[in-house]
Amino acid sequence: MKKIVVIGATGMVGQAVSAALKARHEVIEVGATRGQYRVDSTDPASIERLFGEIGKVDGVVTATGKLHFGPLPEMSAEQFWIGLRDKLMGQINVVLGAQRFVNDGGSFTLTSGILGDEPIREGANATTVNLALEGFVRGAAIELPRGIRINVVSPTVLTEALDAYAPYFRGFEPVTAERAAQAYLRSVEGAQTGRVYRVGY
Amino acid sequence: MKKIVVIGATGMVGQAVSAALKARHEVIEVGATRGQYRVDSTDPASIERLFGEIGKVDGVVTATGKLHFGPLPEMSAEQFWIGLRDKLMGQINVVLGAQRFVNDGGSFTLTSGILGDEPIREGANATTVNLALEGFVRGAAIELPRGIRINVVSPTVLTEALDAYAPYFRGFEPVTAERAAQAYLRSVEGAQTGRVYRVGY
Repeated sequence: MKKIVVIGATGMVGQAVSAALKARHEVIEVGATRGQYRVDSTDPASIERLFGEIGKVDGVVTATGKLHFGPLPEMSAEQFWIGLRDKLMGQINVVLGAQRFVNDGGSFTLTSGILGDEPIREGANATTVNLALEGFVRGAAIELPRGIRINVVSPTVLTEALDAYAPYFRGFEPVTAERAAQAYLRSVEGAQTGRVYRVGY
Repeated sequence: MKKIVVIGATGMVGQAVSAALKARHEVIEVGATRGQYRVDSTDPASIERLFGEIGKVDGVVTATGKLHFGPLPEMSAEQFWIGLRDKLMGQINVVLGAQRFVNDGGSFTLTSGILGDEPIREGANATTVNLALEGFVRGAAIELPRGIRINVVSPTVLTEALDAYAPYFRGFEPVTAERAAQAYLRSVEGAQTGRVYRVGY
């Protein structure tokens, strides 16, 4: 049994990942505004406080992050910063801050998304942020100490999210959050590092 | 003859790109602290002022940007922001701000680098930023209006930079800035969009 922290545990993906991990592991669920523990992952001090309370763990999963969607010709730098501050640096902050709290041979599992590979209209911020996360994982995988691994899961659109996002994803086959969660298990319980686990595409 | 703005024209790559473009085009050289024109590409207002002075152009090349190099276990969020603010958003700011100043069928050519594909120790910030730029180009290519194209050049280490960077790049074959500049010509004078032009690897 491993001790795994799921940050973004109240979200669609996070809930499914937590549920799947609980079959075999101790799961600490962390939300932004709800959940057993809270963290503002855009704030390194908040991450420091969280792991100060939790102590050492075997794995950290992050499934968090806001992006900006809108037409490129009207996009401002300030709007573009939303995804960089939140989905990108939110997850990177967790790795930078939590690495010393992860036991030898533990793991980080981050979340990117299909828009890194498949751009859509109004999605330039998402494509940028998702590929940046895959770059971070590629770079961090060769530097994390003590056998700590890092991977990223890139799911296609979730069945549960189609109500809100269907017009952006015409012709994309959705997957359930439960199916996407399996990729997180592969990362947490497997032996690979520096991998992008694509789900549903 | 096209009218091409080179931002970062006083740098190693920018100088070579300017020289190569001048054979056939009108080149406006822009530096951060030197050159015919100046811009702080991290500041959208400075970009607005620059293009207010220059007016309409047929192409914009950016070859700018600071990154942070250092060991991941000691990297702070603040250090990680350096590459995001400078090399990443510096170039994205230029595209967001300059798009309405680019003539129909014009082009943007950005600069990433080999570390996006080939991570090295202390290079997580560079790998993240370079892939983010490739993501931005992938996303922007399908949204830029009026036939405006966007590509990114990813050179390996430059022969001229080996004095400073050789210890990071053992076994990497360098290319001259003059050779790297050719990829910028392919982007500016070619017809492709959404491309990554890798040079020397």
